[in-house]
Amino acid sequence: MQELEVKKVIALMSGTSCDSIDAGFCEVYPDKTVKLIRGINYQYPEHVRTKIFQMFRGEASIKDICQMNFVIGKCFADAANVLISEFGKPDFISSHGQTVYHYPFDEKIDNISLKSTLQIGESSVIAQETGCLTISNFREADIAQNGQGAPLVCFADEKWWGKYKGKNYAIQNIGGISNVTVISQDYDTFGFDTGLGNIMIDYCVNKYFGEPYDKDGEIAASGNISDVWLDCLLQDEYYFIDPPKSTGREYFNPTYIENVLKFAPEDERDIIATVTALTAKTIAQSYERFVYPNVSIHEAVICGGGAYNKTLMRMLRNYLPKHIDLKTCEDYGISNNFKEVMAFALLGYCTYYGIPNNLPCCTGANKRVVLGKLTY
Amino acid sequence: MQELEVKKVIALMSGTSCDSIDAGFCEVYPDKTVKLIRGINYQYPEHVRTKIFQMFRGEASIKDICQMNFVIGKCFADAANVLISEFGKPDFISSHGQTVYHYPFDEKIDNISLKSTLQIGESSVIAQETGCLTISNFREADIAQNGQGAPLVCFADEKWWGKYKGKNYAIQNIGGISNVTVISQDYDTFGFDTGLGNIMIDYCVNKYFGEPYDKDGEIAASGNISDVWLDCLLQDEYYFIDPPKSTGREYFNPTYIENVLKFAPEDERDIIATVTALTAKTIAQSYERFVYPNVSIHEAVICGGGAYNKTLMRMLRNYLPKHIDLKTCEDYGISNNFKEVMAFALLGYCTYYGIPNNLPCCTGANKRVVLGKLTY
Repeated sequence: MQELEVKKVIALMSGTSCDSIDAGFCEVYPDKTVKLIRGINYQYPEHVRTKIFQMFRGEASIKDICQMNFVIGKCFADAANVLISEFGKPDFISSHGQTVYHYPFDEKIDNISLKSTLQIGESSVIAQETGCLTISNFREADIAQNGQGAPLVCFADEKWWGKYKGKNYAIQNIGGISNVTVISQDYDTFGFDTGLGNIMIDYCVNKYFGEPYDKDGEIAASGNISDVWLDCLLQDEYYFIDPPKSTGREYFNPTYIENVLKFAPEDERDIIATVTALTAKTIAQSYERFVYPNVSIHEAVICGGGAYNKTLMRMLRNYLPKHIDLKTCEDYGISNNFKEVMAFALLGYCTYYGIPNNLPCCTGANKRVVLGKLTY
Repeated sequence: MQELEVKKVIALMSGTSCDSIDAGFCEVYPDKTVKLIRGINYQYPEHVRTKIFQMFRGEASIKDICQMNFVIGKCFADAANVLISEFGKPDFISSHGQTVYHYPFDEKIDNISLKSTLQIGESSVIAQETGCLTISNFREADIAQNGQGAPLVCFADEKWWGKYKGKNYAIQNIGGISNVTVISQDYDTFGFDTGLGNIMIDYCVNKYFGEPYDKDGEIAASGNISDVWLDCLLQDEYYFIDPPKSTGREYFNPTYIENVLKFAPEDERDIIATVTALTAKTIAQSYERFVYPNVSIHEAVICGGGAYNKTLMRMLRNYLPKHIDLKTCEDYGISNNFKEVMAFALLGYCTYYGIPNNLPCCTGANKRVVLGKLTY
């Protein structure tokens, strides 16, 4: 086994909300802590972003996908080169890529599993345009071991919060989709996607108010929750499935949202209030169903864009048991905006050294494996 | 630089004709010679093959592509495991994958190149199902250096024929598409796709005679060449483009073939004779246009499925200058059927050792790079 050293890593990722490429210049230490030197949100060119949303809607030919893999690779390389121009070359780049499809369901044809995932942003383009070793495509190996390929961030959460003794944590990310990692003193770390994060909120705010997102949760705060519609939305079967489980835009897609909007209240502010409550309530309910029976939580740490939505945070406080402390990862010196980037810096670090970096109790994989591919 | 050793390599590939996965257990030597221990043609399950042809026709959603990447990965792994059950584990697997799109054209949006290629057959699935390091996705890095990502086999041809002194060679592969590597005593190795190989012959034989291919060229031998139609087909602009150039099923697709069949002779045997002559004539003409002006050829070595088509070989003999010897790669102890597999064993070997393995004078890339990705 090679001796572990501090490594400079540029990590790149674009989430399901696809608002920008998050790029971070990090230092990763042998004890698995990650220090973010600089994080940037690199905007996709507008026509690229438009094309990505076309892919999300399934409006993409095989030629589009083939080309977009290279186009997005170039955008990722450009984001990395912004950081390289300021901080010099890292030891390697760790790129999550852009998820354009994620299908973690147990279907088979003959004896062939149809579980699959697709992250694009060609690593060869990143490697050639930056001159750096590039580690990429982390989810595939977990799926090849019959896992869900997600959530992967649990691995970092365990390293970062597992060291605090005496408390049990729910590390709750609220991005496009929401996912939790449960770290406890006497139970193996586990995690799953709790369901919607900001996808439906953003979609509705955009549709009814022409804004990209609900800044500080102000629109939600101006409306009233429709209990009838909320109760209806909470019946979705995903929320009842036992973990490990993961979901994505493939499921909570525009067709899904438009279908449920047929039953929405009339006042558009009430719609925003209710879908915001939905994200908060599904998080709280998923703890009741799948966490508290095994682990008593002392503290919930909120990460991701959702942490900035004050109304969502207030609702979450309201839905969670009173004894649970509510914090954000900023309280632990970890950037809300760049936590996933930092996690992928760590995942890349482990791949570099051949250290297994999936958590089967979070993804459902048959065994621990080294995720990712190396491109020189 | 690590010292080179003999390595056992399983190489996997499926070409544009997609008749099977060609898998070879090989030994690769430090002098770059490759010994084929055993080659097998592993049949795709019928529904997988059907789905691949749907992808070729562009009838594939993003979900299909996402799933088929994993499905084909499983088929490739199964093919490798057949060889592993007999010969044990290799040092690593070198997988070309299944090309489903190849777009090497100089288009740009803003400043972003749209050159791209897509080989599927997930390397993580191959690595996990076989337990072997898997090297894959060779074409992307060449395209990232503004090359065409093809032809890559030239690199092996140069290693294998460059050592014979005193003669200039045209190593002519006739697969679905045809490509040549020109190896001479006093000119840099170069190569390009000459155009059609068996794609149109197979398509027409299948359409008019219900057979998968023209066995020994017997149908072609029973018809007469229509000079008028042949002259018309030879006007296609691809044949006039200067190398480096590459092409594929994206260009010579069923729509293309059906369009030109509108002008075909009435007798179906004449159609087969003429499209067979087209492959032979375009090879001969491409030498006249792009090879002889720089290199005088002493010997043409025919490889690939086309070498078994006796009528095609007779026509080629007829169209090539009399002084050129016509051989097949079997004459050099290299399997006609498994030459590409052996080439990818060598390409993987070089990637493993970090040896650059594209030939910019064949692909048009800006520089020599190490192709491929490593999956542990």
